Amino acid sequence: MSERYEIRFSGSGGQGLILAGVIFAEAAAIYDGKNAAQSQSYGPEARGGASKSEVILSDDTIDFPKATSIDLMLALTQEACTKYCGDIKDGGTLLADEDFVRDIPNGNFKAIRLPIIRTASEDVGKAFVANIVAIGAIAALTGRVSREAIEKAVLSRVPKGTEDLNRKALAAGYELVERRTN
Amino acid sequence: MSERYEIRFSGSGGQGLILAGVIFAEAAAIYDGKNAAQSQSYGPEARGGASKSEVILSDDTIDFPKATSIDLMLALTQEACTKYCGDIKDGGTLLADEDFVRDIPNGNFKAIRLPIIRTASEDVGKAFVANIVAIGAIAALTGRVSREAIEKAVLSRVPKGTEDLNRKALAAGYELVERRTN
Repeated sequence: MSERYEIRFSGSGGQGLILAGVIFAEAAAIYDGKNAAQSQSYGPEARGGASKSEVILSDDTIDFPKATSIDLMLALTQEACTKYCGDIKDGGTLLADEDFVRDIPNGNFKAIRLPIIRTASEDVGKAFVANIVAIGAIAALTGRVSREAIEKAVLSRVPKGTEDLNRKALAAGYELVERRTN
Repeated sequence: MSERYEIRFSGSGGQGLILAGVIFAEAAAIYDGKNAAQSQSYGPEARGGASKSEVILSDDTIDFPKATSIDLMLALTQEACTKYCGDIKDGGTLLADEDFVRDIPNGNFKAIRLPIIRTASEDVGKAFVANIVAIGAIAALTGRVSREAIEKAVLSRVPKGTEDLNRKALAAGYELVERRTN
């Protein structure tokens, strides 16, 4: 990896999107030795239901930490997908929840639909780990951060006592992508 | 408030500095209707003990979300203070923990020392709410975000069951500043 790579996590408030961004950035920087910037910005529309956080990865110092040309965008809700997908760059990737995003907007990007929330609630057993399932899927899709780094970053950030649940969620996210591509 | 205002929260990992930044930004944007950007960037030094997060507040859209000229910097540890205080702007403010920051570096800024961690552990009863005590002190010092907005943002982000503890921590932070100025 030498170039800048921008990831946006979007959905609704309460889905743990900031935590997902922080975990991804810490995996890349603290455990994989890359540069990372993680941010959220809020305008007058912040009260609305759609929410997002962003991560920029780079081998070099990140001088401009705002995401402007998204390489991969996660959308866990239709509202967030519709609102935020316009910033995906040409040839970029939209990773949309299969059940909660029914309309994929037109755009010059590749759309991948995976049952992220259903996997969290049915296979792992808790809907609130959908953000960790998503991290596993994104790590697998992008190959930008090592699985070991991602796992360390997840375990350092989740509440004590939930480690096994989150490890299972992360593995389920990887499997969603692996099953799809094999 | 019309100009851009930059706040940096620094200390060590595990002190809840990202959460403090997120709460401050959400208070300003979601509950007070301002623009806010919250970020953390990590370089190769990310494994070290010092940690930081940043918030930018503005009435206008924030085009450049990186803090470069800090108006107020919180330092909860000596290491973070020494490492990060060079970005405080001329005439800015350093808010340093009275017990954990013994050496205030030279610089063209105003230094305020308050017993933030001691207040959290002794008066409120839990050292881990030092970040919330700090939020109260910073809100009181800057006057940039309403107390009602700060309180709403704190309560929306802390774990269920800890609301009273965090409300008490926030009030203790405001009192540290009020006692000092009266």
